[in-house]
Amino acid sequence: MGRDHQRGEQVKVNLDCIPCFMRQALEAARKATDDEKLQTEVLREVSTLMIGLSYSHTPPEIAHKVHAIVRDVTDNPDPYRQVKDADNRLALGMCPWLKELVEKSDDRLHTAVKLAAVGNIIDYGVIHEFDVKETINKVLDKEFAVDRYAEFREELSDAGNIMYLADNAGELVFDKVLIEELGDKDITLVVKGAPIINDATLEDVKSCGLEDIVNVELMGNGTPGTGYERTDPEFISKLKDADIVLSKGQGNYEGLNSENHIYFLLMAKCELIARNLGVERGSIVFCGGEGR
Amino acid sequence: MGRDHQRGEQVKVNLDCIPCFMRQALEAARKATDDEKLQTEVLREVSTLMIGLSYSHTPPEIAHKVHAIVRDVTDNPDPYRQVKDADNRLALGMCPWLKELVEKSDDRLHTAVKLAAVGNIIDYGVIHEFDVKETINKVLDKEFAVDRYAEFREELSDAGNIMYLADNAGELVFDKVLIEELGDKDITLVVKGAPIINDATLEDVKSCGLEDIVNVELMGNGTPGTGYERTDPEFISKLKDADIVLSKGQGNYEGLNSENHIYFLLMAKCELIARNLGVERGSIVFCGGEGR
Repeated sequence: MGRDHQRGEQVKVNLDCIPCFMRQALEAARKATDDEKLQTEVLREVSTLMIGLSYSHTPPEIAHKVHAIVRDVTDNPDPYRQVKDADNRLALGMCPWLKELVEKSDDRLHTAVKLAAVGNIIDYGVIHEFDVKETINKVLDKEFAVDRYAEFREELSDAGNIMYLADNAGELVFDKVLIEELGDKDITLVVKGAPIINDATLEDVKSCGLEDIVNVELMGNGTPGTGYERTDPEFISKLKDADIVLSKGQGNYEGLNSENHIYFLLMAKCELIARNLGVERGSIVFCGGEGR
Repeated sequence: MGRDHQRGEQVKVNLDCIPCFMRQALEAARKATDDEKLQTEVLREVSTLMIGLSYSHTPPEIAHKVHAIVRDVTDNPDPYRQVKDADNRLALGMCPWLKELVEKSDDRLHTAVKLAAVGNIIDYGVIHEFDVKETINKVLDKEFAVDRYAEFREELSDAGNIMYLADNAGELVFDKVLIEELGDKDITLVVKGAPIINDATLEDVKSCGLEDIVNVELMGNGTPGTGYERTDPEFISKLKDADIVLSKGQGNYEGLNSENHIYFLLMAKCELIARNLGVERGSIVFCGGEGR
């Protein structure tokens, strides 16, 4: 596949997303409250959302609505705060080990890119249980199922500024390891302007020690005033102006994969995305960066 | 645990069932039709059902409604017919091997009971992919997590008649192997009076070669006129009159576990049932047969 890979069509909500949204809603509701009546009410309201679902939306657009229901019904603005804190602690504790992997490798940048991809396993939105170190070792032995690393490396040498779209808390520590290998660039890290699932927010940027090495830009969680929506023309224009855009995770891929110039670094965690990319589920993918 | 095990409380629909019903509905809808509009309509109608869901019902009562929606919307009275035919063929092909396992064993009845339990893996309602022979070998090495075999064997020696509640097509071949080890008894096999998921019907009794060795009684699929509902007092009374009732699978356990005298033989395939029984998910269980 490699450089001849044609990126998939724009990702739209699929029937498979519906049971998955219900599962996500229940998981989030249980993290948000112990009150079963409220958990039940969350599932009722998400069921109502599913009845009127338009299949012209991207999955993250619907996820915004699902998790807004969870926050509103349970009156908990940040159901995954404890999860994110635990993930940050876990990843920070692994940081010296991650750095050592980079130090010892023949191609520091390549190892750092792979680590940033595998850091994407820290995602309670999709995968429930995992042994992080074991998974990291396994994934480091695997090749990218789609691999645009050579092109990325070449473009990087001429790039002055980089927009880096973050995905989850915890994973931010892996992003930091990569960012420190990108060289002397002007880097803008895009995180969520308010909580949704375990997505990284400004609080996580601080917890993971990135605030002094990047500028921060905010992307919305679906609620007005929380930052740019992924598809906001002004945001898309900012992305176009950057020398390189590096985007992490499924959500950003689902929302932005029609933007050819963006590099997408992700694990294909669900069947819908794996099919879209033409890879096996569980693969790590480094695609995009085309059409400049 | 063993003979001191207290069977679980009556099983009621739980919040975990909701994403599972959505998943089951989608799977069934896709088997019933290739028309995505109809598949979408199925999920809409099941979402509506979920909004009004009463948590005082047992899971099979709700499953009846879910699968009635699939049949009605897709106008396909038997979405799993091809699955059931394939399962019957698969199991019939394995029959000589199953018989040989029984022949070679020290305790023929015990082996046959275990095989009937493991035959329960043939269930597209819960498990999607499996290698049947590998699973059988693994399960034969495992002990029952709850084991009422000794009591069952003792009761069996005095029993004249037996009510045997079947679960799925394909699995019926495993049931036949057990039934042939029960000795000279008057055996009534209870199967569904009309299709629901891959549950065995009269057609499967014939396909699997059981019609000459058992009487057949019908249990409903939730539609009037298809046989006794599991909780019909007349049916419960018939069960009470039998010398032994042996019930297969999760659905029958969920619907009848408040009847102390019934022996339940099943794999605990979902977390809800595993918790209810106090066993690990995936365990084989032979419980009940108490309170005579």
